[in-house]
Amino acid sequence: MSLKRKHLTAIADLSRDEIMEILQTADSFKEVSGRDIKKVPALRGKTVVNFFFEPSTRTRTSFELAAKRLSADVINFSPSSSSVVKGETLLDTARNIEAMQADIIVLRHQAAGAADTLARGVKSSVINAGDGWHEHPTQALLDLYTLREKKTDFAGLRVAIVGDLAHSRVARSNIYALTKLGAEVHAVGPATMIPSHLDRLGAKIYYNMDEGIRGVDAIMMLRLQLERQGRALFPSIREYARLYGLNADRVKLADSRAVIMHPGPINRGVEIAPEVADSFASVILDQVTNGVAVRMAVLYLLAGAN
Amino acid sequence: MSLKRKHLTAIADLSRDEIMEILQTADSFKEVSGRDIKKVPALRGKTVVNFFFEPSTRTRTSFELAAKRLSADVINFSPSSSSVVKGETLLDTARNIEAMQADIIVLRHQAAGAADTLARGVKSSVINAGDGWHEHPTQALLDLYTLREKKTDFAGLRVAIVGDLAHSRVARSNIYALTKLGAEVHAVGPATMIPSHLDRLGAKIYYNMDEGIRGVDAIMMLRLQLERQGRALFPSIREYARLYGLNADRVKLADSRAVIMHPGPINRGVEIAPEVADSFASVILDQVTNGVAVRMAVLYLLAGAN
Amino acid sequence: MSLKRKHLTAIADLSRDEIMEILQTADSFKEVSGRDIKKVPALRGKTVVNFFFEPSTRTRTSFELAAKRLSADVINFSPSSSSVVKGETLLDTARNIEAMQADIIVLRHQAAGAADTLARGVKSSVINAGDGWHEHPTQALLDLYTLREKKTDFAGLRVAIVGDLAHSRVARSNIYALTKLGAEVHAVGPATMIPSHLDRLGAKIYYNMDEGIRGVDAIMMLRLQLERQGRALFPSIREYARLYGLNADRVKLADSRAVIMHPGPINRGVEIAPEVADSFASVILDQVTNGVAVRMAVLYLLAGAN
Repeated sequence: MSLKRKHLTAIADLSRDEIMEILQTADSFKEVSGRDIKKVPALRGKTVVNFFFEPSTRTRTSFELAAKRLSADVINFSPSSSSVVKGETLLDTARNIEAMQADIIVLRHQAAGAADTLARGVKSSVINAGDGWHEHPTQALLDLYTLREKKTDFAGLRVAIVGDLAHSRVARSNIYALTKLGAEVHAVGPATMIPSHLDRLGAKIYYNMDEGIRGVDAIMMLRLQLERQGRALFPSIREYARLYGLNADRVKLADSRAVIMHPGPINRGVEIAPEVADSFASVILDQVTNGVAVRMAVLYLLAGAN
Repeated sequence: MSLKRKHLTAIADLSRDEIMEILQTADSFKEVSGRDIKKVPALRGKTVVNFFFEPSTRTRTSFELAAKRLSADVINFSPSSSSVVKGETLLDTARNIEAMQADIIVLRHQAAGAADTLARGVKSSVINAGDGWHEHPTQALLDLYTLREKKTDFAGLRVAIVGDLAHSRVARSNIYALTKLGAEVHAVGPATMIPSHLDRLGAKIYYNMDEGIRGVDAIMMLRLQLERQGRALFPSIREYARLYGLNADRVKLADSRAVIMHPGPINRGVEIAPEVADSFASVILDQVTNGVAVRMAVLYLLAGAN
Repeated sequence: MSLKRKHLTAIADLSRDEIMEILQTADSFKEVSGRDIKKVPALRGKTVVNFFFEPSTRTRTSFELAAKRLSADVINFSPSSSSVVKGETLLDTARNIEAMQADIIVLRHQAAGAADTLARGVKSSVINAGDGWHEHPTQALLDLYTLREKKTDFAGLRVAIVGDLAHSRVARSNIYALTKLGAEVHAVGPATMIPSHLDRLGAKIYYNMDEGIRGVDAIMMLRLQLERQGRALFPSIREYARLYGLNADRVKLADSRAVIMHPGPINRGVEIAPEVADSFASVILDQVTNGVAVRMAVLYLLAGAN
């Protein structure tokens, strides 16, 4: 089996069946990552290029490990030391990568739509590893995978996403993914961080955190971009933590079996209390583990390596 | 078969037969890069170190892919994060790399002659990936390889090299290579960018572009080093583009089957018009594809892996 | 056979038998690095992460080559481009690496004790590749390995360590290692660079270099941290070189078969004269070669790959 598509640039483009196929394929790769020899020859002789315009050791490493465990050759192509600084366009640089017979290009870029632009311009497969505030589809897929491990069904699942949803590609991808699968999404945060159009994507908006997380099955905390506070989305970090931080008392408002998620890196004591991040309910590190398996599945399916 | 030489530091040192042997060897590796499994075990267990003192993702990636497709172990050794910043000499650092049993060191360095210095000082094979304004032999070899795909013979072939030849190792290596093979080289550019000694290397000098490219079989455009304009080699970029930029009208002056080449990265609208870069006559991306095959051939032949 | 321990964070923790087992294991890996195909499948499917907070191409490359020659998958995880700049704690970042199923984390960090902190916090094996002024155990092990190649026995061996021992993790690890094995260590340097507690570690302190190296079997020169001279540990580099630099005349004070060592990178003409660094007595490049073999042994033993 393989996906009928060549690129993965947005969850918005995926059907429910495609999402489920990726998650099921990830099952077998999760098993591989648990073995003593964490390696299969599936993508031997294939070339995967990590083409990252934003610093992201975490996501880049997850893709690099995923590719290596599939036996692909991996190149890290970072623009700071590249011809991009010499004024070459994104597409010209990408066409050079393609000309070196890259099978898959994993792109992270600060501009929304960059991955789609690339996908239209090159013959290689393109995976969006985050483009501006648009989408980060493999993050949503690993979040789904993690929920699926803990919960029986997506239909009717209530998931609160808390924080700066306005500037979060993780939130956007998750809203698309969760609503497609029949879950109920609560978008929780201050008005400055919740764009009103989110209700049109199917999310219910809550400006009060206690109301937003009451009875939910999962709380997905977003990272407060501390470097963005100069833009005054919020009076102070302390006040943000008090109103929208997840502490042990607040967790009690959710369903008693609720899981706590976070895409990382976490700000301990800001959006999440240390005791919550380290609690049994937290699946934050499961998300990281599952990220490798999900990315192996996506690389494998796009490469059409049956 | 293998080259009788241990290092590749300059086209000037190569015989015509050696050049042809590298190109013929590249044929089989080009075939490998076109396969579904782009990998052969030829250099398994060999160590290739990319030792780059100047930023160059493009060339570094080409060598890295070439080495990986030959199954070598590859290390990227960049001086910014290395002991070179601590004041160690080039040769001491290289001897450390050698002591770790590097089979081949690929060196890019800002000083002309750096690769020869290294070759005399270490037991590893040394490949010059560009040393100052001296030479960039694998670029010339991939250019030859690309010409050879499109033209029947080097003898009598007329090739115009256009731009700042004074500060171009690519141009120097190509003049050596093309004249050795019997081609006729036109060195085209403003007087500030064409050193008068180029005629002694066998090139014909043209200060007028239309004259220089008239009837040629190939036009090799050099990148205008925009960052170097402070040195006033030319009044303005706009005037440079008007006098020495390649646009669709100028292409008509060349032979009707002429190919357009550029070592990249290209400055669209400066030395080359977008419609020319993207035209059927352009072999710019073929050059990139062939670069991997040619570098595989050079690595393979120097490693003596028969 | 495999070490009974999971981590290697300090020579101080190792027994004499453990040290000898590592050295003996390194013998077979040194043989591998001398082969035409320098690769064994011992750690195939294992993941080694180089987690380096300080620039160190030399040590990082040595570990990377060691891991690759054991067929492990290696990831370089550097904090400058990572979530560490986003304020994540060391332990949270490391737990992410662990969650991606890293078998071994190789840590270099500016804080003494960082490796022990990590070892207590993650399930992966941790190798200390230098933590502040605390320890650099694999450097001491490769120094021992090099001495063992040249000398018959550690017992009674007289080794002078010369330079800024106060700020040298290399010196500390070597003092622990050499005294455990019965060698006599001379700590040689100006009073500002020799902490008085070194005698409690078993070293004899010499402020006069000629006295300190008289009759010794090995002279281990430490690098003068030129970038640290602002702190005024010494009046001038010239005076330091005169009083504590190793030149050909001084070498004659040592045993006639004495070997000259240096962890690198060397400052030619500062702590070591060029003719001494390049003399037959110098084993500085042997140290580099042996570093790869010793690190292969450590990786192999900690991975429990029998």
